[in-house]
Amino acid sequence: MANQAIKPVSNAVIEELRGVIGDRVSTAAAVREHHGNGEDYFTPIPPDAVCFAHSTEEVSDLVKICARHGVPVIPFGTGTSLEGHVVAVCGGICIDVSEMDVILEVNAEDLDCRVQAGVKRKQLNESLRDTGLFFPVDPGADASIGGMSATRASGTNAVRYGTMRENVLGLTVVLADGRIVKTGGRARKSAAGYDLTRLFVGSEGTLGVITVVQLRLFGVPEAMSAAVCQYETLEGAVDTVILTIQSGVPVARIELLDDIQMGACIDYSNLEGYERKHTLFFEFHGTPASVNEQAELVKSISDDFGGGAFNWTSNTEDRNKLWQARHDAYYAAMAMAPGKRGIATDACVPISKLAECIHATRIDIDEVGLIAPIVGHVGDGNFHLVLIIDPEDPDDMTRAKALIERLNMRAIAMGGTCTGEHGVGLGKIDFLVAEHGEAVSIMRSIKQAIDPDNIMNPGKMLRM
Amino acid sequence: MANQAIKPVSNAVIEELRGVIGDRVSTAAAVREHHGNGEDYFTPIPPDAVCFAHSTEEVSDLVKICARHGVPVIPFGTGTSLEGHVVAVCGGICIDVSEMDVILEVNAEDLDCRVQAGVKRKQLNESLRDTGLFFPVDPGADASIGGMSATRASGTNAVRYGTMRENVLGLTVVLADGRIVKTGGRARKSAAGYDLTRLFVGSEGTLGVITVVQLRLFGVPEAMSAAVCQYETLEGAVDTVILTIQSGVPVARIELLDDIQMGACIDYSNLEGYERKHTLFFEFHGTPASVNEQAELVKSISDDFGGGAFNWTSNTEDRNKLWQARHDAYYAAMAMAPGKRGIATDACVPISKLAECIHATRIDIDEVGLIAPIVGHVGDGNFHLVLIIDPEDPDDMTRAKALIERLNMRAIAMGGTCTGEHGVGLGKIDFLVAEHGEAVSIMRSIKQAIDPDNIMNPGKMLRM
Repeated sequence: MANQAIKPVSNAVIEELRGVIGDRVSTAAAVREHHGNGEDYFTPIPPDAVCFAHSTEEVSDLVKICARHGVPVIPFGTGTSLEGHVVAVCGGICIDVSEMDVILEVNAEDLDCRVQAGVKRKQLNESLRDTGLFFPVDPGADASIGGMSATRASGTNAVRYGTMRENVLGLTVVLADGRIVKTGGRARKSAAGYDLTRLFVGSEGTLGVITVVQLRLFGVPEAMSAAVCQYETLEGAVDTVILTIQSGVPVARIELLDDIQMGACIDYSNLEGYERKHTLFFEFHGTPASVNEQAELVKSISDDFGGGAFNWTSNTEDRNKLWQARHDAYYAAMAMAPGKRGIATDACVPISKLAECIHATRIDIDEVGLIAPIVGHVGDGNFHLVLIIDPEDPDDMTRAKALIERLNMRAIAMGGTCTGEHGVGLGKIDFLVAEHGEAVSIMRSIKQAIDPDNIMNPGKMLRM
Repeated sequence: MANQAIKPVSNAVIEELRGVIGDRVSTAAAVREHHGNGEDYFTPIPPDAVCFAHSTEEVSDLVKICARHGVPVIPFGTGTSLEGHVVAVCGGICIDVSEMDVILEVNAEDLDCRVQAGVKRKQLNESLRDTGLFFPVDPGADASIGGMSATRASGTNAVRYGTMRENVLGLTVVLADGRIVKTGGRARKSAAGYDLTRLFVGSEGTLGVITVVQLRLFGVPEAMSAAVCQYETLEGAVDTVILTIQSGVPVARIELLDDIQMGACIDYSNLEGYERKHTLFFEFHGTPASVNEQAELVKSISDDFGGGAFNWTSNTEDRNKLWQARHDAYYAAMAMAPGKRGIATDACVPISKLAECIHATRIDIDEVGLIAPIVGHVGDGNFHLVLIIDPEDPDDMTRAKALIERLNMRAIAMGGTCTGEHGVGLGKIDFLVAEHGEAVSIMRSIKQAIDPDNIMNPGKMLRM
């Protein structure tokens, strides 16, 4: 379908959709344009209509109509994805689940909850505040839980608490023919059949529309303490990370910002008291004694690699400010060059290769002569460049794409992946093949089996 | 295929298989019989031949022959599965990977390793001894890593370290047409495409033969301490578990043995100094300070629920003896009644339902009048009965089956699963449908797409 001419959705189909949800079907240009891309660098292509669904049953009814007419369906949460996941490359309609924002159930005693797909991560954590629980997965954007599930998102806490892969217990999904299936369950483990939950997590809307998500929760640790440490060399910072992970310290967060990114964050988020140097942000969770123990161990590792003083921020407000600055790193990088466009990369390598991969990449950036701050979840071996390019200058894009290709192939050659957490979308279809080879044909077989007419987010992830 | 008459494998096919691996194809009755069942209660059905493969390529060549002739393929590791996974219900040949027992690679700095599927868990941990690393997943039997992957096994450490779902990073799999695919990678997280690793983990041989497994490893904790605590009431023991988990204590192991099971273990494993009471086995991992902290917290919880003294065993030999006794619980239960047969159940429920589920099940056991000790990984909400029945008495089997059905449906109604770690195999095909409903049709679509002629372990998990 990706190679076919885009067929506009007929008025008759739009009317059928209106029969289900009335005026929550919008064909207004502004609404369609808002749904034509994420926070990505792709040329926006708006869908022909946007349907604001309020329930799984509505989604099912909408998809059934699309199935009957062969109309592509693009699921939409907050539009913060970075790989073109919502660009309507094959036309069709967008199903926006952002108004499905009800927290259906919190089971404090089982450390789990069930939410509609449009619930956002900050909303969830705010509503959990009085329970002593929290949901740890925290991509930079305030994304929807449905979108985070669909892209297998992670974030700064993944090194300790895992990604969406580990933290989704079950899903309600509307399939390409409108059938509603429930996967997983509330037990902490199960050997009952194929792991469909894990199959739909990370499927990027290509196998169905996620409408409800059952999530693991965690108790808020008794003690939490964050620290910032700055380094003269990038190697010193990276080596500190590697030895920390190899030593098995259960650090909750360990994030790298290179000197350029740190400078951008200082400016964008008014961080005071820091230098424009390579920097690690740490956070330790546990009992007071264990937090102290972890911090001392990491401090001694850091000292060996030329780390400066640990700048502690243990009160909640300061900690939040620090992590908000980290979450805003992408926006901070973009603010360095108003009017320019940012392309985020997402390589992830085994921890032993992290220093080599970052070092080679940094040399490559310098040689190419682009501005590209480095920021990342280095405890997982995952780091991002934000390549800042001039959209008016085709040479910028050419150089950026060549650099991205070298970076992705470098990560893959090191046993890593071209995408730790952003997903494949439009931008990494060929890298997926480079990374997984023949296994991609199995992915295609599964897509074909579950969505034979290729109406679910066609053109993304796989070339069908 | 399960409903077709079993067609014997022709001599011509056997000769073709011999063309690949020579006299490592056996049709000897003793060898075939040894491969006709696991440690399960099903009537053994031997395969027509057993092929002892030595490499992925050999497995591929063997499967290609089977594919050409429509011959069923049953993968075999150590034959310790509990749900009839290796019973040749549709005939065909068995591919035994137990001689593929090479540890291919240990990457200490990345905390991972790559092993052939026939490597056994104890062998792996012995070979890791000098590295300061260990592999935590520990089902009762000394199973193969391939078999553990195929059944999504777990064990006593899962509450802290996860199951095979969390600890397999990647796989090499031979598909039904002989193609070799590699899934996953060495990065700690990835958003690159469908999660095929998780799809094959737990697929019970129905989607392909797992030949190589990439595993996560963990650093041996600085301090480890085990304790045994005994309770007057089953409720006291279970409530201790529930509050421990809800309090977020990162306990490494927390295992329940009811009074009958504890008595069996005392006799079978010569455990000294214990009473025939409801018992919890604990283990704490961490730094010395954190182990103390955890232990004190759990002790205070236990005191509130009538727990007796904590009987500490911190030296390695005593600890190993204790855990070997726990691992031998199934054999201990069987030793209670020589000549009888054991049926292991495997319900797993959300932790808040654990007391209710165990209580109702215990009443049911008493009413039915069977002997059925309870043992389990209660930190995950998972517990086993070993129903001891007389194979000569059909009434025993009838009562056992009815009890199992009530137990499984009880667990499912509580949001749990009929199988926490043993898998579906032959025994839980209908319970899989009860648990997952319409989602089972997706499993069938996937099976159909990947193994269209249904030659991979047919008759297991799904009715095709």
